[in-house]
Amino acid sequence: MSWDDPRQPEALPCMLHPDVVLDRLSADLAGRYAGVFSLETVQRCVQESYAELARTATVTAHLVTLTGRFATERLTALAQASGAVSKNVCEVLFVCGHNSGRSQLAAALMRHRGPAWVHVRSAGSLPAAQIQPAVLAALNEVGVDVGEEFPKPLSDEVVQAADVVITMGCGDACPVYPGKRYLDWDLPDPHGQPLEQVRDIRDALDTRGCPARRRS
Amino acid sequence: MSWDDPRQPEALPCMLHPDVVLDRLSADLAGRYAGVFSLETVQRCVQESYAELARTATVTAHLVTLTGRFATERLTALAQASGAVSKNVCEVLFVCGHNSGRSQLAAALMRHRGPAWVHVRSAGSLPAAQIQPAVLAALNEVGVDVGEEFPKPLSDEVVQAADVVITMGCGDACPVYPGKRYLDWDLPDPHGQPLEQVRDIRDALDTRGCPARRRS
Repeated sequence: MSWDDPRQPEALPCMLHPDVVLDRLSADLAGRYAGVFSLETVQRCVQESYAELARTATVTAHLVTLTGRFATERLTALAQASGAVSKNVCEVLFVCGHNSGRSQLAAALMRHRGPAWVHVRSAGSLPAAQIQPAVLAALNEVGVDVGEEFPKPLSDEVVQAADVVITMGCGDACPVYPGKRYLDWDLPDPHGQPLEQVRDIRDALDTRGCPARRRS
Repeated sequence: MSWDDPRQPEALPCMLHPDVVLDRLSADLAGRYAGVFSLETVQRCVQESYAELARTATVTAHLVTLTGRFATERLTALAQASGAVSKNVCEVLFVCGHNSGRSQLAAALMRHRGPAWVHVRSAGSLPAAQIQPAVLAALNEVGVDVGEEFPKPLSDEVVQAADVVITMGCGDACPVYPGKRYLDWDLPDPHGQPLEQVRDIRDALDTRGCPARRRS
């Protein structure tokens, strides 16, 4: 299994002690990233990812699976940022407070409708337990699926790997590095809003993020 | 008249000695960029821009007008790159050999159809005298106008101001700076090709640069 294998790390049984499960996950990921990262680097990333997700988790049933996804994204971003791997795309990172509303809406819309030369990630300064149901409904209405996305903490690796960071209501939580373009989009928070208003936010994000319908 | 005034510098009579004309142009631009650049910086930019355009010019009738446009673009880019002014957009620079074919096609299409959070510039390592007529015709067919664009030399300022540099057949002429995303698009050169093939290149660029038609 190579480092860029699209498959997610195998779901591991959660009845085992977390240390055992995380060790297996680390070994699996270290195999994928062989030649790029040492086992120690992968282990540290996995442990940190687990701890960060556990800190905000309200449901712990899928914590190991989510840790695998989160650690994979961080390791991929780290490999890109360090130049160990190159990608022929511009990396856009959406950041909002909880990574459950605006940043998920924007990322999903741009992933499905944005330019092919752009790759999208999203994160939140204080991630929520789940993506807001009204956000999923509003996306579903326009045929856009969030796939395996879930609210993730803002990690240094994804900021380092980004070319463009688009913040929406996360204050100054996002670290500022030289050589990156920081854009701030001022849009209302869909949290607790009725579907009608979430639709308006969705459409406003769609207009900002993606071009107008082609005129020809 | 402020530095970001969209008007182009006033066309100056070309029967005057070039030095007189360029001095007037410099004074005009220094007025726009008051508080951002000194007269000396503006003068140097104007003189350099004139010399660079004159080096490749086959028709000299519009040289002063083009110098005004080129110097304005360079000064704006320099102000952005130095942080003197900020822009809430991602700056994309297209570079090809002559800035008369692929980079003009790509820039015009993205300017008209690309995301609103992107601003586009283009340049060439060895600029041609004019944009290829077949390129203008192919753009015209899909309702896209190049406006006041013309083949411009690749200047350091526009590379410095760019967040994303997309090269197409300019070899290693484009300087590589840290903190920028360099993408290379491998597409045929429309130079000397019949309109039919230029259309194919246009459509390939459109597909790469702009999203597929919305599915909803």
